[in-house]
Amino acid sequence: MNLTKLDVVNTLLRDQKQQPSQQHSHAFAPVNIALCKYWGKRDNQLNLPLTSSLSIALPNLGTHTTLQLIDSTHDSITLNNQAVATDSDFAKKLIAFLDLFRQQSHWRIAVDTHSDVPVAAGLASSASGFAALVLALQQLFGWTLNLTELSVLARLGSGSACRSLWPGFVLWHVGEHADGMDSHGIPLPQTWPDLRLGLLIFHQQAKPVSSRVAMQRTVDTSILYRSWPDQVAQDLSDIQAAITQHDFEKLGIAAERNAMAMHATMLSSWPPIMYSNSDTIKAMQTIWNLRSEGIQVYFTQDAGPHLKLLFRAKDSARIQQEFEQIITLDPFLFKF
Amino acid sequence: MNLTKLDVVNTLLRDQKQQPSQQHSHAFAPVNIALCKYWGKRDNQLNLPLTSSLSIALPNLGTHTTLQLIDSTHDSITLNNQAVATDSDFAKKLIAFLDLFRQQSHWRIAVDTHSDVPVAAGLASSASGFAALVLALQQLFGWTLNLTELSVLARLGSGSACRSLWPGFVLWHVGEHADGMDSHGIPLPQTWPDLRLGLLIFHQQAKPVSSRVAMQRTVDTSILYRSWPDQVAQDLSDIQAAITQHDFEKLGIAAERNAMAMHATMLSSWPPIMYSNSDTIKAMQTIWNLRSEGIQVYFTQDAGPHLKLLFRAKDSARIQQEFEQIITLDPFLFKF
Repeated sequence: MNLTKLDVVNTLLRDQKQQPSQQHSHAFAPVNIALCKYWGKRDNQLNLPLTSSLSIALPNLGTHTTLQLIDSTHDSITLNNQAVATDSDFAKKLIAFLDLFRQQSHWRIAVDTHSDVPVAAGLASSASGFAALVLALQQLFGWTLNLTELSVLARLGSGSACRSLWPGFVLWHVGEHADGMDSHGIPLPQTWPDLRLGLLIFHQQAKPVSSRVAMQRTVDTSILYRSWPDQVAQDLSDIQAAITQHDFEKLGIAAERNAMAMHATMLSSWPPIMYSNSDTIKAMQTIWNLRSEGIQVYFTQDAGPHLKLLFRAKDSARIQQEFEQIITLDPFLFKF
Repeated sequence: MNLTKLDVVNTLLRDQKQQPSQQHSHAFAPVNIALCKYWGKRDNQLNLPLTSSLSIALPNLGTHTTLQLIDSTHDSITLNNQAVATDSDFAKKLIAFLDLFRQQSHWRIAVDTHSDVPVAAGLASSASGFAALVLALQQLFGWTLNLTELSVLARLGSGSACRSLWPGFVLWHVGEHADGMDSHGIPLPQTWPDLRLGLLIFHQQAKPVSSRVAMQRTVDTSILYRSWPDQVAQDLSDIQAAITQHDFEKLGIAAERNAMAMHATMLSSWPPIMYSNSDTIKAMQTIWNLRSEGIQVYFTQDAGPHLKLLFRAKDSARIQQEFEQIITLDPFLFKF
């Protein structure tokens, strides 16, 4: 018997208010960048992963969402001040998620969403989007769920959203229960003041396939993917040790190796999936050349051509000089 | 007890002449392009592979080698009419191979080698080179080894050389014996008259690492490589079926998938190994676009940025139009 999202929601909200208790609410959730990737599901319905993963949040960059009860027969959605057509994939996914919370009642809302990062930048806007949405829903309804429970709810909207409820490093524990109640984000206590993230955004033509499709095709067709759980076990162990020891080289190696391996599983899928373009390849070569000069800089890459660089404060000027368009962020300089 | 190359040579040449019986000899061996790659050794000394592999020879393109006994204290080597320094890697590897055959005697030779393909083109010149060399040595000494035995000898020089003793499709059987006597090329009887190979040679800066180093680093550091034997089992089975059935789509898919998977294992090694450059990536995208238009064209890639395209005679004009610099070959149009 496969559990549905509705089963999970009903369990979590059993003792919570079933009707909105306020007219409006507002919440923010940060974008998170996976250092050890979430790649492959064991349950497509509940977004349960095949392995644990680990991310770092961007400081004060993410999604701001305002909810407002409206007197209407349907929800209305705006994204960065633009009305979103209700038959778009974006709206359908969002409305299907809202439907989970109005089984008996028939409230309708205006969802006003703003993203701090370009939606086209491949910065996992659906993760911060669903995290901000569950935080805003909690306020609108007056629920008293803790962040762990909200993380489970956010995961039902988009897997990696469960890591966007906290700043800093967050581990998404794989869990083992069929209902996924033990598969959620866990914030790590460590900070890393001289760690820097650099966003290298490249012009992107049409995305070859969505990350959801890419993930499924990899699981279905890549033979090398059979070794992915071993890869994650190694990389996750190294990244956690690196965070504890503030061992930057260990962190960089494990993060870059993990990203390369994830893309390797996509390249070995059929048909092959390649998110890198010629700009990506040139930037990788530049990064490897910098390393051969002794500059410790590493990268990670998600489902797009863009790279996210990892380096230390002392090397910021050198990195900035090499990549003029880079956006440098200090992930532990935030107000929450 | 590990066997050495000398042990294998002594076994094979037990009943053969130990001294050159002629003053000079000449031989040719074709370049071979692996459709299912040789990637990883189980024995570094004897070049014994971890899996079987399968190649197709280029028609009349390869290495021509002339041997001439000389009255000298050392061998002399020329490559494409240029003298080769005896302390170069090329010469040292060649001389170490010759030394296997002069344990008791002290003959010296001039080795004059010509390659039909640019050495820089990444077209496995060491494979055709060692195959031509063992054929020329057989003549020089007057040995009576069959091609299977010569294939074992050639493998001691360079693994994939054991596939360069025949035209057309050649399977390199993995074998299981510790002495490698059952690990050699086996020519397949099938031809494929409308099959075409297209060589797409790109400008190459310094090669990042040699294929020998890349192979070893992959075996030592890539976790995804653990699934490579499964990949080869699938691809080899598909390629053999495709050759028997003349199923071009099956051949193309399995060959491209196998090459992508081999490069995926390199990308997931540490440090990462990337032979593709931005030209390679653009050409892959063009090939994938052609396929989406219904043109059946696939590629394979070895330890370099170049691509080798697979297509059918009827699509030659279209492919030529898309890639102006392509060199199109008919692998079954040869004189041997």
